[in-house]
Amino acid sequence: MAKKNETAISPTRAENYPEWYQQVIRASDMAELSPVRGCMVIKPWGYALWENISRALDDMFKATGVQNAYFPLFIPVNFLEKEARHVEGFAKECAVVTHHKLEKGENNQLVPAGRLNEPLIVRPTSETIIGDAFSRWIRSYRDLPMLINQWANVVRWELRTRIFLRTSEFLWQEGHTVHATKQEAIERTYMMLNIYKEMAEKYLAMPVITGEKTEAEKFPGAEITTCIEAMMQDRKALQAGTSHFLGQNFAKASGIRFQSAQETEEYGWTTSWGVSTRLIGGLIMTHSDDNGAVMPPRIAPSHVVLLPIVKKVEQNENVMAYTRDLAEKLREKRYHGGPIRVQIDDRNIGGARNWDWIKKGIPLRVEIGPKDIAEDAVYVSRRDRDRKDSRSMPKDRFVDNICELLDEIHTELYKNALEYQRKHTRDIDEKEEFEAFFTPVNPDRPENHGGFARSHWCGKKECELAIKDRLNVTIRCIPFDREPEDGTCIECGTRTKKGRVIFAKAY
Amino acid sequence: MAKKNETAISPTRAENYPEWYQQVIRASDMAELSPVRGCMVIKPWGYALWENISRALDDMFKATGVQNAYFPLFIPVNFLEKEARHVEGFAKECAVVTHHKLEKGENNQLVPAGRLNEPLIVRPTSETIIGDAFSRWIRSYRDLPMLINQWANVVRWELRTRIFLRTSEFLWQEGHTVHATKQEAIERTYMMLNIYKEMAEKYLAMPVITGEKTEAEKFPGAEITTCIEAMMQDRKALQAGTSHFLGQNFAKASGIRFQSAQETEEYGWTTSWGVSTRLIGGLIMTHSDDNGAVMPPRIAPSHVVLLPIVKKVEQNENVMAYTRDLAEKLREKRYHGGPIRVQIDDRNIGGARNWDWIKKGIPLRVEIGPKDIAEDAVYVSRRDRDRKDSRSMPKDRFVDNICELLDEIHTELYKNALEYQRKHTRDIDEKEEFEAFFTPVNPDRPENHGGFARSHWCGKKECELAIKDRLNVTIRCIPFDREPEDGTCIECGTRTKKGRVIFAKAY
Repeated sequence: MAKKNETAISPTRAENYPEWYQQVIRASDMAELSPVRGCMVIKPWGYALWENISRALDDMFKATGVQNAYFPLFIPVNFLEKEARHVEGFAKECAVVTHHKLEKGENNQLVPAGRLNEPLIVRPTSETIIGDAFSRWIRSYRDLPMLINQWANVVRWELRTRIFLRTSEFLWQEGHTVHATKQEAIERTYMMLNIYKEMAEKYLAMPVITGEKTEAEKFPGAEITTCIEAMMQDRKALQAGTSHFLGQNFAKASGIRFQSAQETEEYGWTTSWGVSTRLIGGLIMTHSDDNGAVMPPRIAPSHVVLLPIVKKVEQNENVMAYTRDLAEKLREKRYHGGPIRVQIDDRNIGGARNWDWIKKGIPLRVEIGPKDIAEDAVYVSRRDRDRKDSRSMPKDRFVDNICELLDEIHTELYKNALEYQRKHTRDIDEKEEFEAFFTPVNPDRPENHGGFARSHWCGKKECELAIKDRLNVTIRCIPFDREPEDGTCIECGTRTKKGRVIFAKAY
Repeated sequence: MAKKNETAISPTRAENYPEWYQQVIRASDMAELSPVRGCMVIKPWGYALWENISRALDDMFKATGVQNAYFPLFIPVNFLEKEARHVEGFAKECAVVTHHKLEKGENNQLVPAGRLNEPLIVRPTSETIIGDAFSRWIRSYRDLPMLINQWANVVRWELRTRIFLRTSEFLWQEGHTVHATKQEAIERTYMMLNIYKEMAEKYLAMPVITGEKTEAEKFPGAEITTCIEAMMQDRKALQAGTSHFLGQNFAKASGIRFQSAQETEEYGWTTSWGVSTRLIGGLIMTHSDDNGAVMPPRIAPSHVVLLPIVKKVEQNENVMAYTRDLAEKLREKRYHGGPIRVQIDDRNIGGARNWDWIKKGIPLRVEIGPKDIAEDAVYVSRRDRDRKDSRSMPKDRFVDNICELLDEIHTELYKNALEYQRKHTRDIDEKEEFEAFFTPVNPDRPENHGGFARSHWCGKKECELAIKDRLNVTIRCIPFDREPEDGTCIECGTRTKKGRVIFAKAY
């Protein structure tokens, strides 16, 4: 419990950002690392976020004609090998299944038995296995476009794990489409990126920069990788979603051919696009503060908690009846496609009860005591505001306005995050300033640095890699809205007119 | 395309039931076997069934206080070993991960590298990994009951696979609960089984028998396994869902302890319960006929397809406008928590169009031609009725009554399935009759046999196993509604008063 001038989360963001992040997750009871190396357990308060995010995304996908399907968890190694860059990107970190049973060995210990003829890998992504299905499903241009999505778990063996951001197993969706023309596939790539931008900004209240990845940062096997990038409160970038135009690379690797309207045989043009439970890490690091999580209302596990205050036993029934009635009235209201999600917490544990909900980040807390009931009022606290701003409101007005109130919270969270991003984004033209911008003031806190630098780049991979080697800074994206401008490459000084790109440290 | 007196599916059920089943799935485009041994690809028309089933179940679970969470895909082998019967049940057929990368070996082929210190298995079920989490989450009786569910994929290495019914990977939900008392855990076991019965009967229109498994057929590690058993159209039983009372077995294996209200330290009482994509196999084999799939309306991927009939180009716009308007009006109606799901199929492919939808099993087909429009009518065909029963209806009446019509189809499907089950269930008291009942008339069609036998059983495992060995017939369940009755064991002749159990061949 936090005392005056203390915070509920220790350390604070300023003291130790990475550790603060872990503590926010622990205090809000969202997830934990499991005893299985690199895997996490997503607890109900965290999983509800994923449920709400995925329902909203699923509706958006379906509105564009996408259908869901499900493909095997396992991929034969020879599938992976079909696309050269793809295998290079994923072979280094994948779970390999080599046996199909366990038997008692020496010391009575269970050991792998039943060796497979060909090892299988647990899918790190499904381009190859889905491509194989598409090669059978698609015969003619009439079968196109093929617009498929799958909700699934994937595994990438990570050495350094950070909950939600980088775990060996994570949950995601992966969309895979096939088109008759290059143009249509490129349009689909951007269309899906726009849905991710909408999810980030309109649901997670997380402003993002959209753009294209450089050659060095592209998805293995893609022609174009587009992305949404968000700034966290340590001013590092989080790649929060990607949408790839794959050209005909995977169509050729998997044999996705179709007969065109002109009766010629053509390879399909494919795309793939995905977001994952990483989004949860993103929203935590965007909004949370030194008192814990702050949930953006539109995907919050719950919108409001009712906290009945009973000091004398004889008041109990009266207060509880008022509370239950309020809960019912709130649940009748609809917000973003579902009912208002209400919790009642009548535990008798003193101030810890209020702090529990602050740490969980529920958007609204409503205290209800005999005095409030006498005035037909409720005492409302907003998670995004200082606790001193809590105030009494007529109950009916609270019920009538709850959707507007939640939207107001959403808008303020977004506005604050956007201000933060702008404040820590700087146009930098001098190499010295660039170096200083990315050099931590305190070497013990390597996470404290400048933020996003908008600088010129000549376009050469060597410059990009030199910066990465020296400063651990990468080009996050070539923003879609970049404007041509005279400048010199921040690394080599070569003149360029292409305009600025976004440099940052990244998760 | 089926001609008069021909069927759309060949072979028919009578000709070759197992092959008919595969062909129904192929013709309806629900799923296919993948090139990965034993794994299936669930295509959009099949996956939509799973989406609708899981949404309905999820709502029912949550209404009883269950929350969703997510646990690791991988289980360390030593976790599995903690419960002796459990490991025996699953070690024989599990995917074992032994390496965490691939490297170029001889001939430039990719080979497993980076051997793990301890192999991991891909979860066949999650009692042990979830039990480990519960042992950390639960401290006091105030933390109980703990009511958790997970939607996930699981892997059990199957040698003989049959799509939806028995595949190496399948999708399911697994609920896991912990209670302070034995009584409460047993009540939860039955409560969840009742939800499965409701799903089967009220959504899938699939009548089930509920009861308890014998010792030999129990889940490995359970004290009581309860189940729902349905009769397929080959008169074999399908175990369609199970709910287990696990006693304190897994609590002791995983160390799930809590401090009671009396401040003593106690082990929790746990349950687990699950249904899987097997339900889809069940509904196919319950309702489908020799023309293909028949979808139960409440979980059908689509409820109705509109088939505009345009013979002259100049009618086109008129017919399409009428069709789109009808679709819009239908989509405004709500049926079982969602809108009426409508498809428009305006492909110009002749009679194949109608047959496509028959094979897919959509509950209602609506033809719309200039003549119908002139009468403000629609021409409606029900999938569950003979095609000769198609008839013209005033459009408004069709729209107004669509929900009642769908419910009528549901009720008839259920009624027919129940009649089938009753017709092929027989009380058998003589060993000879029992043998004959389970002996196929035609040895080439081993699937054709009697159905469910209600017979007496002395309770001894030896009798049960002798019958299994000789006839491949097992006790499907000891029905909850069995009544004490004098009789003699169908195998050994010992007198018993316990009442009848259900014997059948099973999937």
